[in-house]
Amino acid sequence: MPFSYVSHLTCPKCKRTYSVRKKQQLCFCGSPLLVEYQLEELKKNLSPTDIGEREPSLWRYHELLPIKSADHIVSLGEGMTPLIPTPKLGRNLSIPNLYIKDEGTIPTGSFKARGAAVGISKAKELGIRELAMPTNGNAGAAWALYAARADMKATIVLPVDAPTITRAECSISGAKLHLIHGRISDAGKIVAQMVAEKGIYDVSTLKEPYRIEGKKTMGIEIAEQFNWKLPDVILYPTGGGVGLIGIYKSFKELQNLGWIQGRLPRLVAVQSTGCAPIVKAWKEKKNSSEFCTNSTTVAFGINVPKALGDFLVLEAIYQTDGCAVAVDDDMMLQEQKRVASLEGLFICPEGAATIAAARVLRENGWIQEQETVVALNTGLGLKYPNTVQIDTPVLLED
Amino acid sequence: MPFSYVSHLTCPKCKRTYSVRKKQQLCFCGSPLLVEYQLEELKKNLSPTDIGEREPSLWRYHELLPIKSADHIVSLGEGMTPLIPTPKLGRNLSIPNLYIKDEGTIPTGSFKARGAAVGISKAKELGIRELAMPTNGNAGAAWALYAARADMKATIVLPVDAPTITRAECSISGAKLHLIHGRISDAGKIVAQMVAEKGIYDVSTLKEPYRIEGKKTMGIEIAEQFNWKLPDVILYPTGGGVGLIGIYKSFKELQNLGWIQGRLPRLVAVQSTGCAPIVKAWKEKKNSSEFCTNSTTVAFGINVPKALGDFLVLEAIYQTDGCAVAVDDDMMLQEQKRVASLEGLFICPEGAATIAAARVLRENGWIQEQETVVALNTGLGLKYPNTVQIDTPVLLED
Repeated sequence: MPFSYVSHLTCPKCKRTYSVRKKQQLCFCGSPLLVEYQLEELKKNLSPTDIGEREPSLWRYHELLPIKSADHIVSLGEGMTPLIPTPKLGRNLSIPNLYIKDEGTIPTGSFKARGAAVGISKAKELGIRELAMPTNGNAGAAWALYAARADMKATIVLPVDAPTITRAECSISGAKLHLIHGRISDAGKIVAQMVAEKGIYDVSTLKEPYRIEGKKTMGIEIAEQFNWKLPDVILYPTGGGVGLIGIYKSFKELQNLGWIQGRLPRLVAVQSTGCAPIVKAWKEKKNSSEFCTNSTTVAFGINVPKALGDFLVLEAIYQTDGCAVAVDDDMMLQEQKRVASLEGLFICPEGAATIAAARVLRENGWIQEQETVVALNTGLGLKYPNTVQIDTPVLLED
Repeated sequence: MPFSYVSHLTCPKCKRTYSVRKKQQLCFCGSPLLVEYQLEELKKNLSPTDIGEREPSLWRYHELLPIKSADHIVSLGEGMTPLIPTPKLGRNLSIPNLYIKDEGTIPTGSFKARGAAVGISKAKELGIRELAMPTNGNAGAAWALYAARADMKATIVLPVDAPTITRAECSISGAKLHLIHGRISDAGKIVAQMVAEKGIYDVSTLKEPYRIEGKKTMGIEIAEQFNWKLPDVILYPTGGGVGLIGIYKSFKELQNLGWIQGRLPRLVAVQSTGCAPIVKAWKEKKNSSEFCTNSTTVAFGINVPKALGDFLVLEAIYQTDGCAVAVDDDMMLQEQKRVASLEGLFICPEGAATIAAARVLRENGWIQEQETVVALNTGLGLKYPNTVQIDTPVLLED
């Protein structure tokens, strides 16, 4: 039985196909590429019960990942993050069956580790030695650290306003770190120039096809953790949107395998009112988004003015009868505090945005009381210590 | 079959016994208490293979934990942290079979979550509503967050020099946070006074008997992850020493269950040259340590001038033919950087101390080249961002 059932790459726009044996970036038409698997073959050879005893990492799903040989895996033990019942928060929201999938409990402290682990492993399999990327912080930290583990050179370009802790993560890994005045879109332009000049591998969001495969394991885990019966709603903080695209892709694959039945969860893209291009596009029933100028939000990870995969995010929303919601920074920070004090989870502002959105959607009736709802916390709150107000008396030693 | 095989509490010094049905602190004689289990009964009813398919948290070992009813569990999904092979670092150290057990990948970002999860769960089972503790940061953060989840009031007393991020964790949980000028020993005096005045539960290190039960799961996990064949050496950064005591206790229990055979791993207590009371006691072949004055180290978690459980730490070292080693801050920070750049793990200074100690012990021949060695990284490096020097040019947007 093969380690991976990966087949080839397909362009979701123009339907061109590409080999997974060579380095690929975007399609000739400019679209991101998606990985295809031999699902009919896999269906005959594997069932969910085979997976139960495997190690608690995302590599338990290796048949559905693009790495052909276990020897190429670059892992820090990422995946199988806790799916945490949050009944007190749920009562507060009138959503008693509320869960938080906690992506803080993962190497590098954010869900970006999934994309980095699979992306770097595939890059290793392809013989790649050097890469570059723009980032809002967490992705750069994750890719820099996994690149170090894989003996690859990494160049990371980061807005100067991004959480400063992520600089330490990039720097200690030995990566080349550049700070810029501007947003991730500006950082992206600098990387594009480097890549064009030096021919190094561009691992910007969706410019290589494998990060999404790492992210999709969040969807598979949610399915497995609910014993292959999916929840009604999943809320996801949406910047580049790779996680949402990945979760949707995983559910389609699990449907094809016959591992899940029935309606898919309604997928909700949550954005900040300070940067909500997907919400605007969804409200206007469009299939792509417009560049959001002067974007700003405390949830730095979702400050993405224009996502390359916007059309895939919108497709996932439309196909699952989902929606897109924007919440403001104050709402996020209030929920961040409430989640910590009620449930003991110190989530990041992006994760808190999903709770704020759940509140809005419950209040307007889009979420029903009896529904099972999963909110994705994409990382550790402690990467953003400045979002917490501390008012503490200093006692003198007596 | 009972959920827990907990039996009673015993004093390791004077052998008095106590019930697990009531709140207990120290023994009348002043010693910490240890939890005993009905291991002979458990041996008949459970085998390692029964555990294989359970959820990947420390609660997979619930029979060996002191909580009698699953209803009382307060969990954020803690445990089954990755055991990460570090072959490049191992080659650098001439210890090819070197592993890092990564306790950064756990809720609240440090191994303190284990003690808090089990300690708070047992406190809930006992009906406790309020607690207080001194801390060097990570324990306070963990106990504050788990207490919030359990609807308990928490008072945390923290040295003003402790990592500032842990203040945010305590504060956002809703705990009452006090900062003091001084060390954890000074914080401990303030807590003792509060406890005496108000009668609240004192969850200082080893002053309640259950934290150690959470910590011991590191030992059980190491055994399970090595398929119940133990490594030769385990290095542990030692402040209060609860983890080392717990790991030793778990191995004795697994021996009694017949789940492990042969020699136990040699346990190594690693301290900072700026605070090394256990190392001094071990060198002098004593059974207890002396208070270390003017202690200081960048590895704040192990700045503990005098551990209440020093005699238990020393017993674990003597009984396993282990040793105690002090390393200085520069050595730690060098290893911290090396581990990140070679293996992609951003470990904390305390964790890095174990690597520095492994280097010393390999160089002086105490560790042999072919031995299997586990170094415990007790938490996330990113809780100590100031330990990383960042030298980055700021590019201007063009």
